[in-house]
Amino acid sequence: MKIGILGYGNLGKGVESAIRQNPDMELVGVFSRRDPASVETKGAPVYPLEKALEMKDQIDVLILCGGSATDLPKQTPEFAKWFNVVDSFDTHAKIPEHFSNVDAAAKEGNKVAVISVGWDPGLFSLNRMYFGAVLPEGVDYTFWGKGVSQGHSDAIRRIDGVLDARQYTIPVEETLNAVRNGSIKDYTAREKHTRECFVVAKEGADKEKIEREIVTMPNYFDEYDTTVHFISEEELKRDHSGIPHGGMVIRSGKTGFNKENRHILEYRLQLDSNPEFTASVLVAFARAAYRLSKEGQTGCKTIFDIPPAYLSPKSGEELRKSLL
Amino acid sequence: MKIGILGYGNLGKGVESAIRQNPDMELVGVFSRRDPASVETKGAPVYPLEKALEMKDQIDVLILCGGSATDLPKQTPEFAKWFNVVDSFDTHAKIPEHFSNVDAAAKEGNKVAVISVGWDPGLFSLNRMYFGAVLPEGVDYTFWGKGVSQGHSDAIRRIDGVLDARQYTIPVEETLNAVRNGSIKDYTAREKHTRECFVVAKEGADKEKIEREIVTMPNYFDEYDTTVHFISEEELKRDHSGIPHGGMVIRSGKTGFNKENRHILEYRLQLDSNPEFTASVLVAFARAAYRLSKEGQTGCKTIFDIPPAYLSPKSGEELRKSLL
Repeated sequence: MKIGILGYGNLGKGVESAIRQNPDMELVGVFSRRDPASVETKGAPVYPLEKALEMKDQIDVLILCGGSATDLPKQTPEFAKWFNVVDSFDTHAKIPEHFSNVDAAAKEGNKVAVISVGWDPGLFSLNRMYFGAVLPEGVDYTFWGKGVSQGHSDAIRRIDGVLDARQYTIPVEETLNAVRNGSIKDYTAREKHTRECFVVAKEGADKEKIEREIVTMPNYFDEYDTTVHFISEEELKRDHSGIPHGGMVIRSGKTGFNKENRHILEYRLQLDSNPEFTASVLVAFARAAYRLSKEGQTGCKTIFDIPPAYLSPKSGEELRKSLL
Repeated sequence: MKIGILGYGNLGKGVESAIRQNPDMELVGVFSRRDPASVETKGAPVYPLEKALEMKDQIDVLILCGGSATDLPKQTPEFAKWFNVVDSFDTHAKIPEHFSNVDAAAKEGNKVAVISVGWDPGLFSLNRMYFGAVLPEGVDYTFWGKGVSQGHSDAIRRIDGVLDARQYTIPVEETLNAVRNGSIKDYTAREKHTRECFVVAKEGADKEKIEREIVTMPNYFDEYDTTVHFISEEELKRDHSGIPHGGMVIRSGKTGFNKENRHILEYRLQLDSNPEFTASVLVAFARAAYRLSKEGQTGCKTIFDIPPAYLSPKSGEELRKSLL
C-alpha cells in the first residue's frame, strides 16, 4: 500500500522510519507547509501541502502528523474527504467532537479515517477497554513515565529567565507497587507522580525565582512534588536530548461468588523514543485503514472498532498458527 | 442476552459466577453429562446434556466449558451447528484443525463460534499480535507463572506412591529482568522457568525414588530446575488449594533509521483464580458472539477477528468518551 505523510516533525520522521520496517508499504512522499527545499528527509520526496490533492490517486492512506492543538482539528476532517487518513489526535476531552467532525467528512468522501491512534490515546485506551470488559468489577490506574512531557517542558520554557528545559514525569514507586499488590484507593496527583525538571537559566537570571515559579505553577506543577535542577546548555544537550516515555495501565479486579479472588492486569510500555513508537502504531493502523477501505467501509473509526488482525501483515491462517 | 453453560467443572462454575457481574446477561442453565441431581450449582438450573437442543431457541450463546483433550474437539463442532458458541480450546498445535472443523459446522448452521478464548491462547495471543504489528522488528518472550500447572500436577499424581500433588511454574527472575532490560537471546527452558512441587506421599512410599522420578521425567521436568517438597495432606489442602496463575508477554523491539531506539512492551496477568479469570474472558466473548450473530455473521472467529468494542457493554460513544 502507498503511504503519504502530512507534516514532518518528530512524528513524521518516525513514520518515514517505521515504513521501512513494513515491506508491504511504500512511502510516496512527505507533504509540508514549509518550503520543500528546507525539509530534510531521509530520502522521501517532499512536496508542498497544496500538491497532496493532485496526487490523491497515488496515495492509499495519508498519515497526518500535525499537532492536536491546532493542526489536526482542521486537517483531519479536511483531508478525510479525499484520503483514507490516520491521525494521533490526543486531546482526550475533545475526542467526541473530533470524531463527529471526521466521521461526517469521511462519509462524505467514502473514505476511512482512524483517529486518536498512538499509545494514550491508543494502546492504553485499548487495554483499559479489554481490562474492563473481562473484569467488570475493578478499578483502572494509569501511570505515565518515566518520560518527557513536552507540555510541561514548554510551560517551563515560557518562564522569564529560562533558556531551555526538559521535564520528566515519574510514577511514584510506592504507589505503583501498592496498586500492583491490589490496593484500591483514590490516589491524589501527588501520590501517583513526581516531576523532575532540568532547566537551563539565562545568564544572570534569578534561579530561586524560576524554581518558585515552576513548583507553584497551577495545573502543571502545584499538585506535584517537583524537583528542579539547573544545568548548562551542554549538559541538557548531552544528557537530555532523547524523548523517552512510557507508563502502565493497571486494573485491579475481583471475581468469585463472594468476590474472593483478585486479579491484577498490567500493560506496560517503556519507550526510548515516544514519537517513533507513536509513529509505528500509526503505520500499523494505516494498514487497517487501507483494508477497511478496500472492504467498502467508510467513516471514522477508533482503535476500539478495528479487528486486531487488520493491523498485521500476516494472514488469518498464519496468525492462528503462529500467534494464537 | 441469554447464556447456557455446557459442563460444570471449575470453568463452568467460573462462568456462572462471571455472568452475575454482567447485568446484560442472563443464565438460562447448566447442561451436564452427569445426573442433574448430582450437580450443585450456585443457583443455576441444571439440565441433562440431551436437553440442550430442545432449548436452543431460549439460548443466545452456549459457553462450552469442557476440556481441550477430548471434549471440545467433538463438542464445539457439534454444538456450533445449533448454537452460537464460545470455547477455550487451548491445544495450541491443534488450533488450525479445530478452527476448520468449527468453521464448517458454524457456517452450516449460520451460527458464530469463537474458539480459543482465555488468556493463553487468548489475551496473551492478542498482545503478541498487537506487539508484532506495531514493532515489526523485535522478539517476543512469554513467561508463565507463578501458577499452578494442572498438567504437571497430574503427571506427578501418576507416579507410584504419590497420593496428591501440586506443581507451580515460576519465571526465573534474573531472566525476566534481563528481558525487561532489552536482552535478546534464545533462552533455554531451564533459564526461563523453574518448577516447584508439593507432594503428598502415601504411607511408607520411597520419597527419594519419587523425587528422582519427578525431576527426571522427560518433557515435564527434566529440562527444568525442579524443587520437590513433601508435605502432609492437611498442608496441601491448607496452603495449596487455590488455582492461581498468570505470566507475562514481553516484546523487545527497535525503531529508528539505525535501529537506535529500543522499546519494551509488557502484558502481565497475576490471577488468584485461573478458571474464574478464563471464565470472565469467555463471558466477554459471548457478548461479542451474540453481537456478531445479530449482524448476520457466521463461521468461526478468534480473538484476532473481533473488534474490541464488541466485548464491552458500553456503546461506541461511551467508549470514546470514557476510555479513549
